[in-house]
Amino acid sequence: MEIRKFKKTDWGLVWPIIKPVFRGGETYPYSPSISEKDAYTAWVEAPQETFICIDEDNEILGTYYIKANQAELGSHVCNCGYIVAESARGKGIATKLCEHSQQIAKELGFRAMQYNLVVTSNSGAIHLWKKMGFETVGTLHKAFKSKSLGYVDALVMYKELIK
Amino acid sequence: MEIRKFKKTDWGLVWPIIKPVFRGGETYPYSPSISEKDAYTAWVEAPQETFICIDEDNEILGTYYIKANQAELGSHVCNCGYIVAESARGKGIATKLCEHSQQIAKELGFRAMQYNLVVTSNSGAIHLWKKMGFETVGTLHKAFKSKSLGYVDALVMYKELIK
Repeated sequence: MEIRKFKKTDWGLVWPIIKPVFRGGETYPYSPSISEKDAYTAWVEAPQETFICIDEDNEILGTYYIKANQAELGSHVCNCGYIVAESARGKGIATKLCEHSQQIAKELGFRAMQYNLVVTSNSGAIHLWKKMGFETVGTLHKAFKSKSLGYVDALVMYKELIK
Repeated sequence: MEIRKFKKTDWGLVWPIIKPVFRGGETYPYSPSISEKDAYTAWVEAPQETFICIDEDNEILGTYYIKANQAELGSHVCNCGYIVAESARGKGIATKLCEHSQQIAKELGFRAMQYNLVVTSNSGAIHLWKKMGFETVGTLHKAFKSKSLGYVDALVMYKELIK
Protein backbone atom coordinates (compact mmCIF):
# COMPACT_ATOMS: atom_id res chain seq x y z
CA MET A 1 0.00 0.00 0.00
CA GLU A 2 1.31 3.38 -0.99
CA ILE A 3 0.02 6.94 -0.76
CA ARG A 4 1.47 9.17 -3.42
CA LYS A 5 0.78 12.39 -5.28
CA PHE A 6 -1.93 12.32 -7.94
CA LYS A 7 -0.70 12.38 -11.54
CA LYS A 8 -2.93 13.42 -14.41
CA THR A 9 -3.01 9.86 -15.73
CA ASP A 10 -4.49 8.69 -12.39
CA TRP A 11 -7.86 10.31 -13.11
CA GLY A 12 -9.09 7.07 -14.69
CA LEU A 13 -8.60 5.44 -11.28
CA VAL A 14 -9.95 8.30 -9.19
CA TRP A 15 -13.17 9.18 -11.00
CA PRO A 16 -14.73 5.69 -10.60
CA ILE A 17 -14.36 5.85 -6.82
CA ILE A 18 -15.45 9.46 -6.26
CA LYS A 19 -18.28 9.34 -8.81
CA PRO A 20 -20.61 7.09 -6.75
CA VAL A 21 -19.96 9.21 -3.65
CA PHE A 22 -20.83 12.45 -5.44
CA ARG A 23 -23.80 10.81 -7.17
CA GLY A 24 -24.98 9.57 -3.76
CA GLY A 25 -25.42 13.11 -2.42
CA GLU A 26 -24.98 12.09 1.21
CA THR A 27 -21.57 13.44 2.23
CA TYR A 28 -20.15 15.99 -0.23
CA PRO A 29 -22.00 19.14 -1.22
CA TYR A 30 -21.25 18.83 -4.95
CA SER A 31 -24.26 18.37 -7.14
CA PRO A 32 -25.12 14.67 -7.41
CA SER A 33 -25.25 15.22 -11.17
CA ILE A 34 -21.83 16.93 -11.31
CA SER A 35 -20.05 16.46 -14.64
CA GLU A 36 -16.78 14.56 -14.77
CA LYS A 37 -15.05 17.79 -15.83
CA ASP A 38 -16.39 19.73 -12.83
CA ALA A 39 -15.48 16.85 -10.53
CA TYR A 40 -11.93 17.02 -11.87
CA THR A 41 -11.85 20.74 -11.14
CA ALA A 42 -13.18 20.21 -7.62
CA TRP A 43 -10.98 17.26 -6.68
CA VAL A 44 -7.76 18.04 -8.55
CA GLU A 45 -7.55 21.57 -9.93
CA ALA A 46 -9.00 23.68 -7.13
CA PRO A 47 -7.05 21.95 -4.33
CA GLN A 48 -3.40 22.62 -3.68
CA GLU A 49 -2.53 18.92 -3.91
CA THR A 50 -4.34 15.62 -4.43
CA PHE A 51 -3.11 12.19 -3.32
CA ILE A 52 -4.10 8.65 -4.12
CA CYS A 53 -3.69 5.43 -2.17
CA ILE A 54 -2.99 2.31 -4.23
CA ASP A 55 -2.19 -1.30 -3.38
CA GLU A 56 0.61 -3.46 -4.81
CA ASP A 57 -1.56 -4.32 -7.86
CA ASN A 58 -2.07 -0.61 -8.61
CA GLU A 59 -5.72 -0.92 -7.51
CA ILE A 60 -6.97 2.34 -6.06
CA LEU A 61 -7.99 2.26 -2.40
CA GLY A 62 -8.65 5.93 -1.74
CA THR A 63 -7.90 9.55 -2.49
CA TYR A 64 -7.78 12.89 -0.74
CA TYR A 65 -7.17 16.54 -1.51
CA ILE A 66 -5.66 19.32 0.55
CA LYS A 67 -6.11 23.07 0.13
CA ALA A 68 -6.11 26.30 2.08
CA ASN A 69 -9.52 26.83 3.66
CA GLN A 70 -9.48 30.62 3.38
CA ALA A 71 -7.67 33.45 1.65
CA GLU A 72 -4.27 34.74 2.79
CA LEU A 73 -4.86 35.62 6.44
CA GLY A 74 -6.73 32.38 7.01
CA SER A 75 -4.57 30.31 4.66
CA HIS A 76 -2.61 28.66 7.47
CA VAL A 77 -5.69 26.49 8.05
CA CYS A 78 -6.19 23.74 5.48
CA ASN A 79 -9.19 21.74 4.39
CA CYS A 80 -9.15 18.15 3.19
CA GLY A 81 -11.63 15.76 1.63
CA TYR A 82 -11.22 11.98 1.64
CA ILE A 83 -12.86 9.19 -0.31
CA VAL A 84 -12.23 5.48 0.16
CA ALA A 85 -13.07 3.04 -2.63
CA GLU A 86 -16.21 1.10 -1.85
CA SER A 87 -14.34 -2.19 -2.21
CA ALA A 88 -11.67 -1.05 0.26
CA ARG A 89 -13.87 0.08 3.14
CA GLY A 90 -13.39 -1.21 6.68
CA LYS A 91 -9.64 -1.67 6.22
CA GLY A 92 -8.44 1.47 7.95
CA ILE A 93 -7.74 3.33 4.70
CA ALA A 94 -9.48 6.52 5.87
CA THR A 95 -7.30 6.52 8.99
CA LYS A 96 -4.20 6.17 6.84
CA LEU A 97 -5.32 8.96 4.51
CA CYS A 98 -6.10 11.26 7.41
CA GLU A 99 -2.76 10.61 9.11
CA HIS A 100 -0.96 11.15 5.83
CA SER A 101 -2.82 14.40 5.16
CA GLN A 102 -1.88 15.76 8.58
CA GLN A 103 1.79 15.04 7.88
CA ILE A 104 1.55 16.64 4.43
CA ALA A 105 -0.30 19.61 5.92
CA LYS A 106 2.57 20.27 8.31
CA GLU A 107 5.11 19.88 5.51
CA LEU A 108 3.16 22.43 3.46
CA GLY A 109 3.23 24.85 6.40
CA PHE A 110 -0.38 24.57 7.56
CA ARG A 111 -1.01 25.03 11.28
CA ALA A 112 -4.52 23.58 11.55
CA MET A 113 -7.01 21.49 9.59
CA GLN A 114 -10.70 22.27 9.26
CA TYR A 115 -13.64 20.23 7.96
CA ASN A 116 -16.39 22.66 7.08
CA LEU A 117 -19.40 20.45 6.55
CA VAL A 118 -19.33 17.01 8.16
CA VAL A 119 -22.84 15.69 7.67
CA THR A 120 -24.17 14.37 10.98
CA SER A 121 -25.69 11.32 9.30
CA ASN A 122 -22.12 10.33 8.35
CA SER A 123 -21.48 8.93 11.84
CA GLY A 124 -18.57 6.76 10.76
CA ALA A 125 -16.63 9.79 9.60
CA ILE A 126 -17.41 11.78 12.74
CA HIS A 127 -16.27 8.90 14.95
CA LEU A 128 -13.05 8.61 12.97
CA TRP A 129 -12.22 12.32 12.93
CA LYS A 130 -12.70 12.46 16.69
CA LYS A 131 -10.36 9.52 17.07
CA MET A 132 -7.86 11.41 14.90
CA GLY A 133 -7.91 14.34 17.31
CA PHE A 134 -10.48 16.62 15.67
CA GLU A 135 -12.79 18.64 17.86
CA THR A 136 -16.34 19.51 16.96
CA VAL A 137 -16.37 23.30 16.79
CA GLY A 138 -20.14 23.35 16.50
CA THR A 139 -23.24 22.36 14.60
CA LEU A 140 -24.70 24.08 11.54
CA HIS A 141 -28.42 23.44 11.68
CA LYS A 142 -29.81 21.92 8.50
CA ALA A 143 -26.79 23.13 6.52
CA PHE A 144 -26.68 20.07 4.26
CA LYS A 145 -29.38 18.81 1.95
CA SER A 146 -28.94 15.06 1.89
CA LYS A 147 -30.34 13.32 -1.17
CA SER A 148 -32.11 10.72 0.98
CA LEU A 149 -32.80 12.60 4.23
CA GLY A 150 -33.42 16.19 3.17
CA TYR A 151 -32.03 18.97 5.40
CA VAL A 152 -29.66 17.58 8.01
CA ASP A 153 -27.19 19.15 10.43
CA ALA A 154 -23.51 19.39 9.64
CA LEU A 155 -20.53 19.81 11.92
CA VAL A 156 -17.53 22.08 11.70
CA MET A 157 -14.54 20.04 12.91
CA TYR A 158 -11.05 21.37 13.60
CA LYS A 159 -7.63 20.25 14.70
CA GLU A 160 -4.65 22.37 15.53
CA LEU A 161 -1.56 20.72 14.07
CA ILE A 162 0.85 23.16 15.66
CA LYS A 163 -0.01 24.49 19.09
CA MET B 1 -30.35 56.58 2.33
CA GLU B 2 -30.77 53.82 -0.16
CA ILE B 3 -29.47 50.28 -0.52
CA ARG B 4 -29.35 49.12 -4.11
CA LYS B 5 -27.67 46.61 -6.36
CA PHE B 6 -24.08 47.31 -7.35
CA LYS B 7 -23.52 48.50 -10.90
CA LYS B 8 -20.16 48.24 -12.62
CA THR B 9 -19.77 52.02 -12.55
CA ASP B 10 -20.05 51.95 -8.73
CA TRP B 11 -16.62 50.40 -8.32
CA GLY B 12 -15.06 53.86 -8.07
CA LEU B 13 -17.17 54.35 -4.92
CA VAL B 14 -16.68 50.87 -3.47
CA TRP B 15 -12.94 50.38 -3.81
CA PRO B 16 -12.00 53.43 -1.68
CA ILE B 17 -14.03 52.09 1.27
CA ILE B 18 -13.03 48.43 1.08
CA LYS B 19 -9.38 49.13 0.26
CA PRO B 20 -8.42 50.41 3.75
CA VAL B 21 -10.23 47.48 5.37
CA PHE B 22 -8.40 44.91 3.24
CA ARG B 23 -5.09 46.79 3.67
CA GLY B 24 -5.67 46.76 7.41
CA GLY B 25 -5.63 42.97 7.60
CA GLU B 26 -7.73 42.80 10.77
CA THR B 27 -11.12 41.49 9.66
CA TYR B 28 -11.09 39.97 6.16
CA PRO B 29 -8.73 37.16 5.17
CA TYR B 30 -7.75 38.68 1.81
CA SER B 31 -4.11 39.57 1.50
CA PRO B 32 -3.51 43.11 2.84
CA SER B 33 -1.66 43.77 -0.41
CA ILE B 34 -4.50 42.46 -2.61
CA SER B 35 -4.61 44.11 -6.05
CA GLU B 36 -7.60 46.21 -7.05
CA LYS B 37 -8.41 43.63 -9.72
CA ASP B 38 -8.43 40.74 -7.24
CA ALA B 39 -10.50 42.79 -4.81
CA TYR B 40 -13.05 43.33 -7.58
CA THR B 41 -13.13 39.59 -8.19
CA ALA B 42 -13.58 38.87 -4.49
CA TRP B 43 -16.21 41.53 -3.77
CA VAL B 44 -18.16 41.65 -7.04
CA GLU B 45 -17.45 38.76 -9.40
CA ALA B 46 -17.25 35.75 -7.07
CA PRO B 47 -20.40 36.67 -5.08
CA GLN B 48 -23.89 36.11 -6.41
CA GLU B 49 -24.82 39.75 -5.80
CA THR B 50 -23.26 42.90 -4.38
CA PHE B 51 -25.10 45.88 -2.90
CA ILE B 52 -24.15 49.41 -2.00
CA CYS B 53 -25.65 51.86 0.46
CA ILE B 54 -25.57 55.51 -0.58
CA ASP B 55 -26.94 58.71 0.91
CA GLU B 56 -28.93 61.42 -0.86
CA ASP B 57 -25.70 63.05 -2.14
CA ASN B 58 -24.64 59.76 -3.71
CA GLU B 59 -21.93 59.39 -1.07
CA ILE B 60 -21.20 55.76 -0.31
CA LEU B 61 -21.96 54.58 3.21
CA GLY B 62 -21.40 50.86 2.89
CA THR B 63 -21.45 47.73 0.79
CA TYR B 64 -22.07 44.02 1.11
CA TYR B 65 -21.97 40.87 -0.95
CA ILE B 66 -24.03 37.72 -0.80
CA LYS B 67 -23.16 34.28 -2.15
CA ALA B 68 -23.78 30.59 -1.53
CA ASN B 69 -21.43 29.32 1.15
CA GLN B 70 -21.04 25.83 -0.30
CA ALA B 71 -21.66 23.83 -3.47
CA GLU B 72 -25.08 22.54 -4.46
CA LEU B 73 -26.15 20.47 -1.41
CA GLY B 74 -24.99 23.24 0.93
CA SER B 75 -26.01 26.10 -1.36
CA HIS B 76 -29.16 26.93 0.64
CA VAL B 77 -26.84 28.56 3.19
CA CYS B 78 -25.46 31.92 2.14
CA ASN B 79 -22.45 33.92 3.23
CA CYS B 80 -22.23 37.72 3.35
CA GLY B 81 -19.50 40.27 3.92
CA TYR B 82 -20.16 43.87 4.97
CA ILE B 83 -18.04 46.99 4.95
CA VAL B 84 -19.11 50.39 6.23
CA ALA B 85 -17.28 53.52 5.05
CA GLU B 86 -14.99 54.86 7.74
CA SER B 87 -16.75 58.23 7.65
CA ALA B 88 -20.16 56.58 8.14
CA ARG B 89 -19.43 54.44 11.21
CA GLY B 90 -21.54 54.55 14.34
CA LYS B 91 -24.70 55.43 12.39
CA GLY B 92 -26.30 52.01 12.29
CA ILE B 93 -25.32 51.33 8.69
CA ALA B 94 -24.06 47.83 9.43
CA THR B 95 -27.39 47.01 11.05
CA LYS B 96 -29.21 48.26 7.96
CA LEU B 97 -26.96 46.27 5.64
CA CYS B 98 -27.38 43.11 7.69
CA GLU B 99 -31.17 43.46 7.81
CA HIS B 100 -31.25 44.13 4.07
CA SER B 101 -29.04 41.13 3.33
CA GLN B 102 -31.31 38.81 5.32
CA GLN B 103 -34.29 40.01 3.32
CA ILE B 104 -32.42 39.57 0.03
CA ALA B 105 -31.22 36.16 1.16
CA LYS B 106 -34.77 35.00 1.66
CA GLU B 107 -35.80 36.46 -1.72
CA LEU B 108 -32.95 34.53 -3.35
CA GLY B 109 -34.15 31.33 -1.71
CA PHE B 110 -31.49 30.94 0.98
CA ARG B 111 -32.57 29.28 4.23
CA ALA B 112 -29.69 30.28 6.50
CA MET B 113 -26.75 32.68 6.66
CA GLN B 114 -23.26 31.77 7.82
CA TYR B 115 -20.22 33.87 8.68
CA ASN B 116 -17.18 31.62 8.44
CA LEU B 117 -14.46 33.67 10.04
CA VAL B 118 -15.52 36.41 12.45
CA VAL B 119 -12.29 37.54 14.05
CA THR B 120 -12.68 37.62 17.84
CA SER B 121 -10.83 40.93 18.08
CA ASN B 122 -13.65 42.44 16.00
CA SER B 123 -15.90 42.69 19.06
CA GLY B 124 -18.17 45.34 17.53
CA ALA B 125 -19.14 42.98 14.73
CA ILE B 126 -19.70 40.03 17.07
CA HIS B 127 -21.93 42.15 19.29
CA LEU B 128 -23.93 43.31 16.28
CA TRP B 129 -24.34 39.88 14.70
CA LYS B 130 -25.60 38.51 18.02
CA LYS B 131 -28.08 41.36 18.21
CA MET B 132 -29.18 40.47 14.67
CA GLY B 133 -29.99 36.92 15.76
CA PHE B 134 -26.82 35.08 14.84
CA GLU B 135 -25.57 32.31 17.06
CA THR B 136 -21.97 31.47 17.65
CA VAL B 137 -21.57 27.94 16.33
CA GLY B 138 -18.07 27.71 17.73
CA THR B 139 -14.54 29.00 17.88
CA LEU B 140 -11.72 28.24 15.45
CA HIS B 141 -8.52 28.51 17.45
CA LYS B 142 -5.96 30.85 15.91
CA ALA B 143 -7.66 30.55 12.52
CA PHE B 144 -6.99 34.18 11.53
CA LYS B 145 -3.63 35.89 11.23
CA SER B 146 -4.29 39.48 12.17
CA LYS B 147 -1.80 41.99 10.82
CA SER B 148 -1.40 43.63 14.23
CA LEU B 149 -2.12 40.77 16.65
CA GLY B 150 -0.81 37.65 14.91
CA TYR B 151 -2.83 34.44 15.27
CA VAL B 152 -6.22 35.10 16.81
CA ASP B 153 -9.39 33.05 17.22
CA ALA B 154 -12.29 33.37 14.82
CA LEU B 155 -15.94 32.47 15.24
CA VAL B 156 -18.33 30.63 12.98
CA MET B 157 -21.69 32.40 13.28
CA TYR B 158 -24.99 31.19 11.87
CA LYS B 159 -28.61 32.19 11.59
CA GLU B 160 -31.47 30.14 10.27
CA LEU B 161 -33.69 32.42 8.17
CA ILE B 162 -36.36 29.79 7.63
CA LYS B 163 -37.01 27.36 10.45
